[in-house]
Amino acid sequence: MSNYLVPKLAVVGVGLIGGSLALALKEAGAVGEVIGIGRGLANLEKALELGVVDRYTQDLAEGVADADLVFLATPVLTLAQVAAAAAPHMKPGAVLTDGGSVKASVAEAIEPLMPEGVHFVPGHPIAGTENSGAEAAFATLYHGRRCIITPTEKTDAAALDLVTRVWKTAGSEVVLMDVIKHDRVLAAISHLPHMVAYSLVNAVGSYDRYEENILEYSAGGFRDFTRIASSDPTMWRDIALTNREALLEMMDRCEAFFAELKEDVRQGEGDKLYEFFLRSKELRDGIL
Amino acid sequence: MSNYLVPKLAVVGVGLIGGSLALALKEAGAVGEVIGIGRGLANLEKALELGVVDRYTQDLAEGVADADLVFLATPVLTLAQVAAAAAPHMKPGAVLTDGGSVKASVAEAIEPLMPEGVHFVPGHPIAGTENSGAEAAFATLYHGRRCIITPTEKTDAAALDLVTRVWKTAGSEVVLMDVIKHDRVLAAISHLPHMVAYSLVNAVGSYDRYEENILEYSAGGFRDFTRIASSDPTMWRDIALTNREALLEMMDRCEAFFAELKEDVRQGEGDKLYEFFLRSKELRDGIL
Repeated sequence: MSNYLVPKLAVVGVGLIGGSLALALKEAGAVGEVIGIGRGLANLEKALELGVVDRYTQDLAEGVADADLVFLATPVLTLAQVAAAAAPHMKPGAVLTDGGSVKASVAEAIEPLMPEGVHFVPGHPIAGTENSGAEAAFATLYHGRRCIITPTEKTDAAALDLVTRVWKTAGSEVVLMDVIKHDRVLAAISHLPHMVAYSLVNAVGSYDRYEENILEYSAGGFRDFTRIASSDPTMWRDIALTNREALLEMMDRCEAFFAELKEDVRQGEGDKLYEFFLRSKELRDGIL
Repeated sequence: MSNYLVPKLAVVGVGLIGGSLALALKEAGAVGEVIGIGRGLANLEKALELGVVDRYTQDLAEGVADADLVFLATPVLTLAQVAAAAAPHMKPGAVLTDGGSVKASVAEAIEPLMPEGVHFVPGHPIAGTENSGAEAAFATLYHGRRCIITPTEKTDAAALDLVTRVWKTAGSEVVLMDVIKHDRVLAAISHLPHMVAYSLVNAVGSYDRYEENILEYSAGGFRDFTRIASSDPTMWRDIALTNREALLEMMDRCEAFFAELKEDVRQGEGDKLYEFFLRSKELRDGIL
């Protein structure tokens, strides 16, 4: 018998997120073997060469067959499809988890797919860098970062315990949260800001009153403020499609505040403008 | 006869902006004497002690009487009033300039106040830190930063030349720009982003579906993105009041893009969402 927390780990999608979990568990001596599963052969070979995985396959069914834990680290919109293809081949007692940025729609789609004795635990490690691919993975990506796990009524207690221990072993602070609340909180603190930044850059960058791109005049402040508008369009398309309801609630809220502010600017309401800016400053300084 | 670029410089408002120009010109040996003018005695004494000014007065009329150049570095909304009080006491041949973040309304208000032989040159050094007061001033604040000067049809050529040389001596890259264009460009790259950030923080910070402030969950990304929402409410009230027209134009534009994006989210338009995000990413990456 093995004493590893996870004797065999299968990682589907060996990029920054999947590869870094593999490396973290290896470094902690918590995993016996890591099987990398993906479509791109070059990336899988790179992952093997870098020691991110111990072996790899492009055959999902074969790759997950022996695994005690299967970690899905593919784009959000593909998770249900990958889970549907993997689940029938997983062994009894195995656990499936994921790293998607949206949880309610993912949990709802994946839970009914689980065969008897195989359990799904929805998770979301809040970490990332601008890089991608197996080469971008590193063992300390999750150190000190939050990982939100969102058990539902159907989540198996032992499976939840395993996934919690896995993320703690990888260095994360684990937070358990209701799945709907997760999507609303992330819509507010992450998804909405991205929508705002993308809109802002499009509004400023397409301004055509002059025969030059006025973004040329933007200094460090604008560049810093709009950094997140440079994020991967595919990932954000998937998030916008899968967290629609929570995102629309926050977009409506933000639109209402912006409209209130615009009206105060139009009317020259100095006192109201001051109050609006002060309230925001106090809210933000409160999180520093 | 003196060989100084500015034999006598009067600085009205001896804070970060005014004090740093004084220090930069002193370090360059370009100024004979600096007279600090302000209301707060403690700040003026501190400025004298730190060598930011050579003498000070709380009497504006007396302070500007001898000056060859008067630099107004007070909040935007006070500039016209201070100029009205100073102008009648300035000597023939003297030049008045300012450092306000908004230019059209300032130029329009101040130009008619100038007595015969006294000239106004509107300027905007694009620099700053989070600190304020004479203690915050330092000689290299303007090094490598842009200073936009916005001459109008009425601007005297010799006065424009002096102010240009002053900012170059302080280390700035001087850009001459039409005054209306300045206000539109700044509305786009600076004023609009602040309005967006203030609205976003208010929308997220006041979200009350849960019995806790969800800003607690916001990580580094949100903090970085919303840093500018922590700016001085008085300064931003003044900017919103004095650059109303250009700011409203940009707020309308941004609102339209945001509404378009919201509609695409609502309709689940994956291709349009991808295009929207990609366009923004390309625009932003273009300014890196």
